[in-house]
Amino acid sequence: MVRYFITFLLSVFISLNLNAQSRREIQIPDIPGYLTLKCDFHMHTVFSDGAVWPTVRVNEAWEQGLDAIAITDHIEYRPHSQDIKSDHNRSYEIAKPLADQKGIILIRGTEITRKMPPGHLNAIFITNANLLERDDWFEACREAKDQGGFIFWNHPGWKRQQPEKTLWWSQHTRLLDAGILGGIEAFNHHDYYPEALKWAFEKNLTLIASSDIHSPIDDSYDAADSHRPVTLVFATERKAESIKYALENRRTAIYFKDKLAGDQKFLAPIFSASVKILTDYVRLENNMVKFIQVHNNSDIDFILKGKNSGLGFTCAKEVVLKAHRTTMIEVEGNSEEIKNQPVLKLEYEVTNLIVAPGESLQIVLEAYNF
Amino acid sequence: MVRYFITFLLSVFISLNLNAQSRREIQIPDIPGYLTLKCDFHMHTVFSDGAVWPTVRVNEAWEQGLDAIAITDHIEYRPHSQDIKSDHNRSYEIAKPLADQKGIILIRGTEITRKMPPGHLNAIFITNANLLERDDWFEACREAKDQGGFIFWNHPGWKRQQPEKTLWWSQHTRLLDAGILGGIEAFNHHDYYPEALKWAFEKNLTLIASSDIHSPIDDSYDAADSHRPVTLVFATERKAESIKYALENRRTAIYFKDKLAGDQKFLAPIFSASVKILTDYVRLENNMVKFIQVHNNSDIDFILKGKNSGLGFTCAKEVVLKAHRTTMIEVEGNSEEIKNQPVLKLEYEVTNLIVAPGESLQIVLEAYNF
Amino acid sequence: MVRYFITFLLSVFISLNLNAQSRREIQIPDIPGYLTLKCDFHMHTVFSDGAVWPTVRVNEAWEQGLDAIAITDHIEYRPHSQDIKSDHNRSYEIAKPLADQKGIILIRGTEITRKMPPGHLNAIFITNANLLERDDWFEACREAKDQGGFIFWNHPGWKRQQPEKTLWWSQHTRLLDAGILGGIEAFNHHDYYPEALKWAFEKNLTLIASSDIHSPIDDSYDAADSHRPVTLVFATERKAESIKYALENRRTAIYFKDKLAGDQKFLAPIFSASVKILTDYVRLENNMVKFIQVHNNSDIDFILKGKNSGLGFTCAKEVVLKAHRTTMIEVEGNSEEIKNQPVLKLEYEVTNLIVAPGESLQIVLEAYNF
Amino acid sequence: MVRYFITFLLSVFISLNLNAQSRREIQIPDIPGYLTLKCDFHMHTVFSDGAVWPTVRVNEAWEQGLDAIAITDHIEYRPHSQDIKSDHNRSYEIAKPLADQKGIILIRGTEITRKMPPGHLNAIFITNANLLERDDWFEACREAKDQGGFIFWNHPGWKRQQPEKTLWWSQHTRLLDAGILGGIEAFNHHDYYPEALKWAFEKNLTLIASSDIHSPIDDSYDAADSHRPVTLVFATERKAESIKYALENRRTAIYFKDKLAGDQKFLAPIFSASVKILTDYVRLENNMVKFIQVHNNSDIDFILKGKNSGLGFTCAKEVVLKAHRTTMIEVEGNSEEIKNQPVLKLEYEVTNLIVAPGESLQIVLEAYNF
Repeated sequence: MVRYFITFLLSVFISLNLNAQSRREIQIPDIPGYLTLKCDFHMHTVFSDGAVWPTVRVNEAWEQGLDAIAITDHIEYRPHSQDIKSDHNRSYEIAKPLADQKGIILIRGTEITRKMPPGHLNAIFITNANLLERDDWFEACREAKDQGGFIFWNHPGWKRQQPEKTLWWSQHTRLLDAGILGGIEAFNHHDYYPEALKWAFEKNLTLIASSDIHSPIDDSYDAADSHRPVTLVFATERKAESIKYALENRRTAIYFKDKLAGDQKFLAPIFSASVKILTDYVRLENNMVKFIQVHNNSDIDFILKGKNSGLGFTCAKEVVLKAHRTTMIEVEGNSEEIKNQPVLKLEYEVTNLIVAPGESLQIVLEAYNF
Repeated sequence: MVRYFITFLLSVFISLNLNAQSRREIQIPDIPGYLTLKCDFHMHTVFSDGAVWPTVRVNEAWEQGLDAIAITDHIEYRPHSQDIKSDHNRSYEIAKPLADQKGIILIRGTEITRKMPPGHLNAIFITNANLLERDDWFEACREAKDQGGFIFWNHPGWKRQQPEKTLWWSQHTRLLDAGILGGIEAFNHHDYYPEALKWAFEKNLTLIASSDIHSPIDDSYDAADSHRPVTLVFATERKAESIKYALENRRTAIYFKDKLAGDQKFLAPIFSASVKILTDYVRLENNMVKFIQVHNNSDIDFILKGKNSGLGFTCAKEVVLKAHRTTMIEVEGNSEEIKNQPVLKLEYEVTNLIVAPGESLQIVLEAYNF
Repeated sequence: MVRYFITFLLSVFISLNLNAQSRREIQIPDIPGYLTLKCDFHMHTVFSDGAVWPTVRVNEAWEQGLDAIAITDHIEYRPHSQDIKSDHNRSYEIAKPLADQKGIILIRGTEITRKMPPGHLNAIFITNANLLERDDWFEACREAKDQGGFIFWNHPGWKRQQPEKTLWWSQHTRLLDAGILGGIEAFNHHDYYPEALKWAFEKNLTLIASSDIHSPIDDSYDAADSHRPVTLVFATERKAESIKYALENRRTAIYFKDKLAGDQKFLAPIFSASVKILTDYVRLENNMVKFIQVHNNSDIDFILKGKNSGLGFTCAKEVVLKAHRTTMIEVEGNSEEIKNQPVLKLEYEVTNLIVAPGESLQIVLEAYNF
Repeated sequence: MVRYFITFLLSVFISLNLNAQSRREIQIPDIPGYLTLKCDFHMHTVFSDGAVWPTVRVNEAWEQGLDAIAITDHIEYRPHSQDIKSDHNRSYEIAKPLADQKGIILIRGTEITRKMPPGHLNAIFITNANLLERDDWFEACREAKDQGGFIFWNHPGWKRQQPEKTLWWSQHTRLLDAGILGGIEAFNHHDYYPEALKWAFEKNLTLIASSDIHSPIDDSYDAADSHRPVTLVFATERKAESIKYALENRRTAIYFKDKLAGDQKFLAPIFSASVKILTDYVRLENNMVKFIQVHNNSDIDFILKGKNSGLGFTCAKEVVLKAHRTTMIEVEGNSEEIKNQPVLKLEYEVTNLIVAPGESLQIVLEAYNF
């Protein structure tokens, strides 16, 4: 009878909880050929040193518009072990039914947690986390790879492990040469590591941005002002296998604070799919000021810095295309040449879209003149 | 030399101002066959008893996502006349160049301002407001109509003019019979008049909702919590003539507070175009709970009240499809009949979409089951 | 060496976390003779059916401006017991060091979780929760009382246990007669129980409002729009003993949604301490309109409904004294009697301050006239 | 009869408008010996090149918590003169009755508007603006001074007048030597002029920060994110004369964006009156981490940068004392010397409180240790 009573209670709590929630999609558009999936592959629960039950990670992911997550509890660091007696697969197993119900892709993962070098490494798409509990860190990584896992280096510039300088160690070269190391976090929690961005481009590593969240997510990213870090995965389908294939083929970009970083072949189409010129014809003449209206349907403010103005006109040097807003760009005719311009080409760099270390995306906004 | 100096200053102030602004589109979708234009046909400036220069009304309209406005300064009530010596067309003339620059459709209008009956009437799409300054109110209305104007009755339930009860007077019948009265405000500033909604349906009048704003618009509608009242005009083109034609043919709905009111033939397609079922297959079985995910891409929270559940299942009785969010609707299999349902049909009324006095829009959400 | 490494990590995580937080005090003023302590005596962790580690409850309490909390995990309902093997005192023990560090008063508590009758009961200020694990619910309650505990009835109107009507059962009379039942929740999570308010006044029970939170707190109370339910405890010192003494002597009021409920002897001084008349002299004359400025320094919007105006003047019938804002109240002289009024007395009821079932606080705002 | 009708209408509009408003006080505390009055002495209306009726400036001032304003329409620049035929005193006269009703101190002012040098100068506390319409700019300034006016130099670094460099001209020296120039704007609208701050200290000029607002105020300062620039006037009474005396005696500081600038003798007591240490006793020992709780009751986030830690302990190097929040400051015992410290002295500079060019306020937070 007590058993019956308990089941009864449980179902009530769950349904009440679900009805109250709503999900805010992350508005970064798909690009030609690919879906733009929003993913976070690094987070913790009470099963290592986190402060929440695994289902909380699924609820947070759903509410915050993610497509896929990996719970990656530490293998070697379990400070709650006096109270929690379970193996390394348990947080995944607890979260899986809720993830299925909500349509969140849950990827099995764990964090191999060592001193530097090699520091902390995440292994995702593994099949059994328990087998990664090894004395030798390299053996743990090899086991993850043997299970079909994708392995990336976490927070390479973490001050606690690399207090002076963010270094690449011979151990990372060893992992790379063995075909084990596939990716690197260039952003973790609140911190950006420019060295990691550089290595990702130089060494062909997949770019990753993670929350590495331990507490409830709202503690770290105030809903009104900020968003959690996200790895954008360019996949052909909204499925786990498709995400894995994209990671193995370096088809990601990262979204952190007000910035995107990634290959130009991904960032250029994201910008194009986000921005639309609303003004049909500018009809600019010499000594005349006109405005071109541009709408941005993404969540990202695009910060534009003018390069060259076209023949016969100048345009505003600094423009912010605010998220989900229409912005006016001022153009002014400055010679009679303007009469011969059927199309105005406004050249800008988008300073918060990073396509290589120290390099921003170059774009051209085109508006019909006559 | 002083002349030069002044022009210089002027251009600086204008361009600085424009660059700082951004426009928030009102997200209510177009419907099959029509654009859904957002309009406010009732507002004031310093040229009658308002507190702002006419250009402010254009800036506000642009920032708040309107397509068209009419400035409707009072003919008979000009409390600033000691300082402002201008005719009744002046506010339009001052606002027009900025409206053209920003792409706001500015419609010439005025307010015929009399005691009740007939109270206050707006005349828009007129050609010369000065000719409406007449002793006889009916002559003023006829002149407006002769100019090709569209005339509607303002705030019919205004407490100051109809303190006890919102009455329809013989004078309104006279205007209606003469083919002069075309529309009626069912919402003005912060107030809703259910009688006006009833008359609009009974007497074939066009529904109008207006801000009737006198002060700066942000004073009355806090940007974070609320929006100005808007007349939705279903037009074939984003042009003044197209708006006029739609008004004359009763193709409007009104958007005020958290509500839409209008004919079902407009509100049903707005709901359909706003809402998308995201769950591909529910796969519901008897004694099982599942969730259907529904996305609402409009600015309006849709408040759903369950009617009948379908054969073999029950669904949540109260659901709010929040604006720009994804919501889960709970369904539960309650008989073996559920196995024979290839499509689940969830019947709801949308209590904040009013299609007739006391009547809400009925909708059916359909989700594939197997 | 591994041990050293682990400690190292732990201290890092804790200090980073603390530095990022800030606390928002709940602005409800102290009253003459008492501090107004903000308390929540009902919440859960992973040690029963909650979703967070006990330290999360302390962090939430600190950030949200609470003085004291009780973690009250269920005795009889522990759905995570497959993974969590600990006794009933464990959540308190884990949370206590952090509570001490942050200055949160942590009160030991538990929830006796039974079918109706008697339903769920909280026991706080107990010394050993393990001893409450009894077959007989009355024995469990008596044990709690014997430990010096304060016992209150949780969510008496919970639909799952009282689906038709909120009833008082003989079992509750038994607890009351035995001197065991001390208080009752009139508000739980999002629900208000008017019957419980009535019983509190009739049967001399202490009023309690609780979050009964299971998930992270931000899931249930959106920081921008709402606050968690709070029991206001009127205590002579900010200490556990002082809170216990206040509870035993019915010195509480409850703060939920936009409302306060409690005895007039507490609510009247809260209103007085929150509100200040800023206008020195009104200098109102007959046929003149003037404004009295009133500042409200509390978190609560006070909703005022006019009763009688004084001799010689009328005043606004509906006034909202917004939280942390100054509001103008309009007064108008309506007879020559106004000349003989040295003080204007504005009589209102504060409709959201409930001093008995169906009864609001009556207040008089006094402003010097001459 | 028409006359009666009009008055009727007018009173309705005014009272409706006032009832809806509320005022948000600017929370910067008074200091010993002085009230801290919040003032803006530079703004425009339709009577020069502004876009609002003068009463709007009073409503804005009241809602935004100001004590005093000056409307300073241009003498030489009146682009609306085709429509508005009034003298230079008119905007003051229109605004005065509403200012009296709302308790806003309205100071008569105007802007002498010339090419650089000397550029634009505000004259406030004058008695008749019409007499300042002179061919010779120096004569206009002398007339203002002869009327008892206080004169300050507006936006000295305005790019349109000083495109290359912010220069001090011989004309300004002439005004200074003649005892006419009393103050200088170091902040105007959105721009800060560090040169002006330097000159204010070097040449004994009163610091001024102004909105110089032309459009409705909400257009330029988003209520959610920002505040208008304010001159803080340290006055003995909330009266016009007292403000004038304070300006003449350099008793001001300026509040712009997230910063205060002014003499240390004003900023130090503002900080002290805003901040309160809540932790009674720290009880820190060697190798122990503790937290000191500090509450900030002002609107300003104080950004603290650690200088030296005291004997026997270290403290957090970077602390933000958030506005209206309690913050924890971490301290750690690092030697046995800590046992001999009855008081912990935490030395910081407050980087956003500027007491001289390039120099921040130094403060010491003291907490009892045992």
